[in-house]
Amino acid sequence: MAPFKPDPCLFLIFGATGDLARKKLFPAFYNLYIDNFLPASTRLVAVGRRPYNQDAFREQILLPSLKTFSRRADKLEQTFAGFAARCVYFQSDIYDPQGYARLKDLLRQLEEGRATGGNRVYYLAVAPVHFGRLVAGLREENILANSGWQRVIIEKPFGHDLESARRLNRLLDQVFAEEEIYRIDHYLGKEMIQNIMVIRFANAFFEPVWNNKYIDHVQISSVETVGVGERGGYYEKAGALRDMVQNHMLQLLAMIAMEPPSSLATGAIRDEKVKILRSLRSLNPEAVRRDAVRGQYGEGFIEGKPVVAYRQEKDVAADSATETFVALKIFIDNFRWAGVPFYIRTGKRLPVKSTEIILQFKALPEVLYFKEYGELQPNLLVIRVQPYEGVFVQLNAKRPGNNNYIVPIRLDFCQNCEAGVNSPEAYERLLYDAMRGDRTLFTGWEEVEQSWRFIDPIAKVWAAAAPLFPNYAAGQWGPEAAASLLLKDGRRWWNAPAAQQE
Amino acid sequence: MAPFKPDPCLFLIFGATGDLARKKLFPAFYNLYIDNFLPASTRLVAVGRRPYNQDAFREQILLPSLKTFSRRADKLEQTFAGFAARCVYFQSDIYDPQGYARLKDLLRQLEEGRATGGNRVYYLAVAPVHFGRLVAGLREENILANSGWQRVIIEKPFGHDLESARRLNRLLDQVFAEEEIYRIDHYLGKEMIQNIMVIRFANAFFEPVWNNKYIDHVQISSVETVGVGERGGYYEKAGALRDMVQNHMLQLLAMIAMEPPSSLATGAIRDEKVKILRSLRSLNPEAVRRDAVRGQYGEGFIEGKPVVAYRQEKDVAADSATETFVALKIFIDNFRWAGVPFYIRTGKRLPVKSTEIILQFKALPEVLYFKEYGELQPNLLVIRVQPYEGVFVQLNAKRPGNNNYIVPIRLDFCQNCEAGVNSPEAYERLLYDAMRGDRTLFTGWEEVEQSWRFIDPIAKVWAAAAPLFPNYAAGQWGPEAAASLLLKDGRRWWNAPAAQQE
Repeated sequence: MAPFKPDPCLFLIFGATGDLARKKLFPAFYNLYIDNFLPASTRLVAVGRRPYNQDAFREQILLPSLKTFSRRADKLEQTFAGFAARCVYFQSDIYDPQGYARLKDLLRQLEEGRATGGNRVYYLAVAPVHFGRLVAGLREENILANSGWQRVIIEKPFGHDLESARRLNRLLDQVFAEEEIYRIDHYLGKEMIQNIMVIRFANAFFEPVWNNKYIDHVQISSVETVGVGERGGYYEKAGALRDMVQNHMLQLLAMIAMEPPSSLATGAIRDEKVKILRSLRSLNPEAVRRDAVRGQYGEGFIEGKPVVAYRQEKDVAADSATETFVALKIFIDNFRWAGVPFYIRTGKRLPVKSTEIILQFKALPEVLYFKEYGELQPNLLVIRVQPYEGVFVQLNAKRPGNNNYIVPIRLDFCQNCEAGVNSPEAYERLLYDAMRGDRTLFTGWEEVEQSWRFIDPIAKVWAAAAPLFPNYAAGQWGPEAAASLLLKDGRRWWNAPAAQQE
Repeated sequence: MAPFKPDPCLFLIFGATGDLARKKLFPAFYNLYIDNFLPASTRLVAVGRRPYNQDAFREQILLPSLKTFSRRADKLEQTFAGFAARCVYFQSDIYDPQGYARLKDLLRQLEEGRATGGNRVYYLAVAPVHFGRLVAGLREENILANSGWQRVIIEKPFGHDLESARRLNRLLDQVFAEEEIYRIDHYLGKEMIQNIMVIRFANAFFEPVWNNKYIDHVQISSVETVGVGERGGYYEKAGALRDMVQNHMLQLLAMIAMEPPSSLATGAIRDEKVKILRSLRSLNPEAVRRDAVRGQYGEGFIEGKPVVAYRQEKDVAADSATETFVALKIFIDNFRWAGVPFYIRTGKRLPVKSTEIILQFKALPEVLYFKEYGELQPNLLVIRVQPYEGVFVQLNAKRPGNNNYIVPIRLDFCQNCEAGVNSPEAYERLLYDAMRGDRTLFTGWEEVEQSWRFIDPIAKVWAAAAPLFPNYAAGQWGPEAAASLLLKDGRRWWNAPAAQQE
């Protein structure tokens, strides 16, 4: 079947010589090109501050980016020339007033005799601090007052708290309608995240047990082995709570917990997600102390190699109070989930890189029948987001043999465990969706707002008291308190490789 | 962990030079020996009509049997001598009155100074027609009036209809109590059949959906590629209905459909199975014509090779009306299963050898949401009994890629798909259980009785009208009418390899 193609458009990337463009956006755009998802008239307009002519941009920026980061780099030899011909570099400084007039001319020129109908995507791959000037520039030159649709894509952070998020949003909504704003949460572009809705609502198997009658609790873990790397400057101001929990983790939670939407339209799905975020039980200061755990890595070992403590990383304060680990126990106060804790956890310098969602089922009354066989493991439904993409169910079964030993078995499906599978990158899906106007996998303003409402009280309590950091060694599963958070409830984390002993 | 050992005993096999002993019983006994499940004093007493001395029996009967049929034949060199020392051959004819007195002497002699405590298993591996004389012989010589426990194991057929089953049972229960009678249904010894109870009752996952609210229908298929082979004489009198449905198929159905037992005690489980068999909706003549399909294979091809029709097989009548295929639509009239048809099917000379139980889930109302993606496949839970032992769930998931195609995926567990796995044979488990007095995997009299009550009316209608045989070619999936049985209900058979198109 021929791939469904979006409308043709001009696709502008501001910040074209930055990391995001180089590592994610150019490769994603190229992969879409290779897979024939781009209409013939669609052009990429790369806007950067540095002076390159077209050839230099193509050879020194574009080609190395694709070579290093595209999953289709093997096709470059045959296809690079064709792709490069669709990319235009435009040199300009965001703060140069002349730049916008020149940009306007370029866009008009590119649109002449081309079928894009004035459709444009503006990808703001620059720090939010520059949004104000950029948007003002676009407005002042009437660049947006164009025929065709206009869409803007922005990256997190969507503010630092509710107040700053509102300020940022006001900046954008002066010139873009909410339907034109595409807030990227790249987690939502991951294959298995997209699969959550299908698994939940296209199968008779799960809906009957997807509630507090059968689910004991839910665990959502997104952990990584890397430290803060080159991002110390940004990270010092963010921390894991803002960098991971406010957006990615709460989005995953909302997709797992939401009610079935009345249709698959963006609005219908978004409404259900917002309902979940509104139903999150807010943590008062006492609850923060009891149910919110923060951590910061000290020195330790990752894959056998010594690594420095967070406070020794580049651009990090020697007495930094920034958390690199968060664990929370969250309740959703609605009929479906009353009494079911959602434990979420994220951290840097943990023993593995893994994002997994685990639904643990309640113990059966029938365990009584099986007491002769010793303690049964609980049933688990595990959605593996990365690095493995798949889903498995952990059940109990009889071990082959003449004695009735019961052992956990896994009914397993993994879509990228075998060689040769090459799932699209999250950004491919998201750029594609932006071009065809599907906002389902982007974050709406109300979701941003509700997330910050939940996050702010936690951040506030934490800001008021200096933590005893570092409190976990690099290569460990976070601070002691994270384990206790579940142990005191008679539960335990299932650490990846999931469902194995810690 | 050391294997749990049963009480020591003398284990008598009558019919020791027959096929069953050679192919199944000796190898099973040997495998139990290898795996250290046999107490040191336990002895096998092989009773046969032919004259062998001990050495000849060991070299000409026992060793070839193990070499050919034991899954542990690789251990023979080191272990055969030790095993053979535990086996005694006893020559006698069942109809020789002297034989029983000699046997009594031998048993006494073997028990002297040995820790068996008079415990004995009598395995009647002879045709049922000989049971009467055999049991009379044992009784007349007071062989059974011994210290220790006495148990008798018999093989199917447990009669030809309810009346003959009762006669057979009366023969046995003159000398054995019901608790001493072990009726072997070797299907119940298969690993995955034993696993059904564990899967159903040791997992929180299944019980909530294991009923007519969520299950659309159940399919139980036990099909094979072989024809009647050397068994034409027996098969002509039995047919698939008596040979497979009355025992194996109805047992599988009972295990799938039964309520959770109040404990894992044999009696508690048996009670639940009997309740199911009692709840089978009896087929009146009209229902037999509508919901019962019989077939007999004509000539055709199996794995590319031509094979003869049933009526051309050895010891088969040229106008035989014996069915080699049966398909039935059965209802269980109880609260759990009201309205859920159980389709069962068995046949010879079908395209594959496979025993599978498939629970198909109802379509979701939510398919409405997904109508844009076309028709969804139903969810299936498949228990694979043989040749693969495992369980899988068929779900719908998103196919990786930027379009939202939904495809069926399998969450799969297979315990013998990888090389090196060597599940015990059904007979190992069953002999072991008989020695330790666990009748759970054997068929109780009430089950036999209720099965015949269900089977007899079908057999009667069929006997009254000559069928148009043959009605399917060898290598096909049975007669046309078997497909129609489901098609007219808007359903279809999932032919093994399960869940793939026919």
